[in-house]
Amino acid sequence: MIRNYKFTVSYDGSRYLGWEHQKQTDRTIQGKIETVLARMAGLIGPDELLPVDPAKEPLLKLIGAGRTDAGVHAEAMVCNAFLDTVLSEDEILDYMNRYLPDDIAVSDVRIASERFHSRYQAVGKTYRYTFYCGRIKPVFDRKYVTVIDREPDLARMKAAAALLIGTHDFKSFCGNPKMKKSTVRTVDSIEIRRSGSYIRIFVHGDGFLQHMVRIIAGTLLEVGLGKRESEEIPAILEAMDRTSAGYTAPPEGLCLVKIDY
Amino acid sequence: MIRNYKFTVSYDGSRYLGWEHQKQTDRTIQGKIETVLARMAGLIGPDELLPVDPAKEPLLKLIGAGRTDAGVHAEAMVCNAFLDTVLSEDEILDYMNRYLPDDIAVSDVRIASERFHSRYQAVGKTYRYTFYCGRIKPVFDRKYVTVIDREPDLARMKAAAALLIGTHDFKSFCGNPKMKKSTVRTVDSIEIRRSGSYIRIFVHGDGFLQHMVRIIAGTLLEVGLGKRESEEIPAILEAMDRTSAGYTAPPEGLCLVKIDY
Repeated sequence: MIRNYKFTVSYDGSRYLGWEHQKQTDRTIQGKIETVLARMAGLIGPDELLPVDPAKEPLLKLIGAGRTDAGVHAEAMVCNAFLDTVLSEDEILDYMNRYLPDDIAVSDVRIASERFHSRYQAVGKTYRYTFYCGRIKPVFDRKYVTVIDREPDLARMKAAAALLIGTHDFKSFCGNPKMKKSTVRTVDSIEIRRSGSYIRIFVHGDGFLQHMVRIIAGTLLEVGLGKRESEEIPAILEAMDRTSAGYTAPPEGLCLVKIDY
Repeated sequence: MIRNYKFTVSYDGSRYLGWEHQKQTDRTIQGKIETVLARMAGLIGPDELLPVDPAKEPLLKLIGAGRTDAGVHAEAMVCNAFLDTVLSEDEILDYMNRYLPDDIAVSDVRIASERFHSRYQAVGKTYRYTFYCGRIKPVFDRKYVTVIDREPDLARMKAAAALLIGTHDFKSFCGNPKMKKSTVRTVDSIEIRRSGSYIRIFVHGDGFLQHMVRIIAGTLLEVGLGKRESEEIPAILEAMDRTSAGYTAPPEGLCLVKIDY
């Protein structure tokens, strides 16, 4: 019996080209999961990779709530797929964790309504961006932070963040210059917390454009370091031009934390 | 002016052959640090590796408080070296962190008495061994834990640990069958703490034999899983035979936490 399964997945994105599957490589998170699911469902043999041929209907289509860039991590990505399997949800969870590489884990498997769509029904997402400004290199979590060599001023960053809250056209914060669809998004909250040498920026919104959280993090950092003034934020938004905003902070500091339904 | 410098170092041992330098490889932590210090002191050129020729007096000799095995980590290894440099301690710290790979960091540099010897003067060491027994794979700290697939009984482990405390001949817990020197050591405390799916064993003693903490961790785990009884511990110690004790738990779960002087 074909059912719609909802999965919650965490991954260390360091060695992947990103979430979305790509032709001629198995270095994507979606590709890894689709291949394991296709094997579990008996659609491919034990040593085959799932063929990805955009001209054909895929053998198995995993729908993700969003796409994370190369090198970006996730604590709780949500995705779903229609599967015909006799295994229980618990058995599916154990099967997936056994056959997925050790940098991808499935924390939850459940049967969803057949109308559940992990992307269309997502109403909010939380990302966390982590800067590390300590003098001593962070050895053990070096793959999950962006090291900066000066301490930014948090009050300045918070003032700039406050000006980004709300419903705006975030075209200036979009990394895709060919974006044809609406670039209007709502950012509900940006919290900036310091703990020791770690500065964590939590961004919650209804959805995000390509590189949007990384450009927000990069712009806030530039304000914190005195390279920009927080008062520039309204003009950056109005410019609707990527070059008006700050730099795209690197992927390793970014983690998808939660998706709301 | 030649002075004796004391260093505190943390490292992720995953990609190294261990602390101790070896010929014909630069994949040791000691070798990496010695090479950076030798470059700093002008003993070798910027792209050279420090030559290691056991027949000759080394150009620069870094003395470590102990040797960690391949794949074992350290939060605070202590080592010392005699150096002739005009740099201040702060400048040495920054130089080392700049040129060491990102999985080795120096957290402290200070001038020690010329009689300070990081190995001979160490009076105690703390190691931590971490097992992970959760159902979901630990994605983000997978290199720092040993994953086990069943939950051990902590009360059984604690009972066995109590029988290891004290001054004993730990020959049964020594991984080196050719060990000629005394295998008597004093273990002051073994604390076993559970936090969520993590089981951490803290072992403090005056010194440890090769693989000793890993064999203690492996033996305690076997007791916790019901494969052995805690009452066997005295007989294991008396046997003075490696084969009487439990398995050598893998290196990734082990971390050198602190050295006492």
